[in-house]
Amino acid sequence: MDYNGLYRHIMEKGSYLCVGLDTDTEKIPAHLRSGKEPVFEFNKAIIDATAPYAVAYKPNIAFYEAEGTHGLEQLEKTVAYLGAEYPEMLVIADAKRGDIGNTADRYAKAFFEVMDFGAVTLSPYMGSDAIRPFLRYEGRWSIVLALTSNPSAEEFETLSVCGEPLYQTVIKKTIRFAENEYGSSKDRLMFVVGATRAEEIASVRSCCPEHFLLVPGVGAQGGSLAEVARYGMNSKCGLIVNSSRGIIYASSGKDFAEAAAVKAKEMAAEMRKTLCGIGKI
Amino acid sequence: MDYNGLYRHIMEKGSYLCVGLDTDTEKIPAHLRSGKEPVFEFNKAIIDATAPYAVAYKPNIAFYEAEGTHGLEQLEKTVAYLGAEYPEMLVIADAKRGDIGNTADRYAKAFFEVMDFGAVTLSPYMGSDAIRPFLRYEGRWSIVLALTSNPSAEEFETLSVCGEPLYQTVIKKTIRFAENEYGSSKDRLMFVVGATRAEEIASVRSCCPEHFLLVPGVGAQGGSLAEVARYGMNSKCGLIVNSSRGIIYASSGKDFAEAAAVKAKEMAAEMRKTLCGIGKI
Repeated sequence: MDYNGLYRHIMEKGSYLCVGLDTDTEKIPAHLRSGKEPVFEFNKAIIDATAPYAVAYKPNIAFYEAEGTHGLEQLEKTVAYLGAEYPEMLVIADAKRGDIGNTADRYAKAFFEVMDFGAVTLSPYMGSDAIRPFLRYEGRWSIVLALTSNPSAEEFETLSVCGEPLYQTVIKKTIRFAENEYGSSKDRLMFVVGATRAEEIASVRSCCPEHFLLVPGVGAQGGSLAEVARYGMNSKCGLIVNSSRGIIYASSGKDFAEAAAVKAKEMAAEMRKTLCGIGKI
Repeated sequence: MDYNGLYRHIMEKGSYLCVGLDTDTEKIPAHLRSGKEPVFEFNKAIIDATAPYAVAYKPNIAFYEAEGTHGLEQLEKTVAYLGAEYPEMLVIADAKRGDIGNTADRYAKAFFEVMDFGAVTLSPYMGSDAIRPFLRYEGRWSIVLALTSNPSAEEFETLSVCGEPLYQTVIKKTIRFAENEYGSSKDRLMFVVGATRAEEIASVRSCCPEHFLLVPGVGAQGGSLAEVARYGMNSKCGLIVNSSRGIIYASSGKDFAEAAAVKAKEMAAEMRKTLCGIGKI
């Protein structure tokens, strides 16, 4: 999916919601746990219930790896299900990978070929070698960590280098090398910025006015959607806002999917307002 | 395995060699490829042949993920085989994970519980939240990226923050928070420094005189073992030097395991000299 395709999908839905599939076997409703593939069954029900309100899904790879190969099988099934039933959705592997070139090649193969993800999150610490193999895939997105939502983000990400915070240097250098190779970068590159740092979203936005930002941290982590929109939205929306726990664990009973739909619908309604606010809808 | 146990193993073997299991299905000798589990069979033969000369093995997780769940199954079998047949070996997951606390918990579970790795490599970009869940496991090691072996390491890792390169700040802050929680950190924490930057190993060593360093980049990437020892060795050796491609692909024929043993033996002999040089053997 390209930049304009993503924008069109957002406008059609009036939503820029990403549902985070941080599927924890201990939090899956009891009635599903005795099945053969409880993680997949849970994801499928959540996806079917929330799809009218979402433009993206983001499985958090750690939760699947923690269940061993059976967890990975259910991840593969989830991605395949999304591709077959909801091909318009952006499917993001929240993996935060980052390694030298020949190794990054293999991670890119794992996420873009073995599985059919549309995007993957990447850690910039090792520099452009870690990003380049992912950028090669046209029509897929590399989503690079800039300023994350967790408390210890301040230990390194905001340190001053050359008179600016490290995360700004990360954004600028990553865009520069991507544009050296591909001319434009907004079709292949996004950045992660945490919703818990609303005012710093403006600082991120100043370094990449056109790019989409993936924003986790709304909901359980305490970020405010109105603030995120205020500081981060651009003329093509430019935001994908993720909520995981606040949606998928809205109920632990048999009504978990309906409860997730209610929460997703509420968020989408709030998102529609912010899109109206900038005259886009 | 604790600090002294690792030191004793190094002294017994006269070697601080780690064999990197970057097992690529396209480079496995042809006669193994038709089998049901070629990656595991290859790893098993390499391990049996090189074990007399090695103290550690380091599967590179990307290579297994690139083969989907079947790759992961063979990784699990490799780790189980090492645990059963060579319990004295340090088995390192080269995974370079780094995520917020509740997600890092799951990666720690994946590597230390679902699989029985003794260590895992971690990316520091997101700060101590990403490291803490791994440090909790007594007798296991968290190996944090400091200065890596790849060319683009200079894009961020060596940038000056507060008058010192970022990688020094990473080392100092990580040690400080680990020691705040556990008193000592050299039993739980190592750092990665690339062999391609021999002189900077001295700069890493100055920040962590006692800690073990995991040093990739000898061999195919061009680093020199003598230089690494010169700048990085401490009174307890303090080094684990990895070679992957130079050992495991020494031959592409039926003699691949014997050829790997020859290369590992050569490296171990060179390592023994460097240990003699500091009067340890």
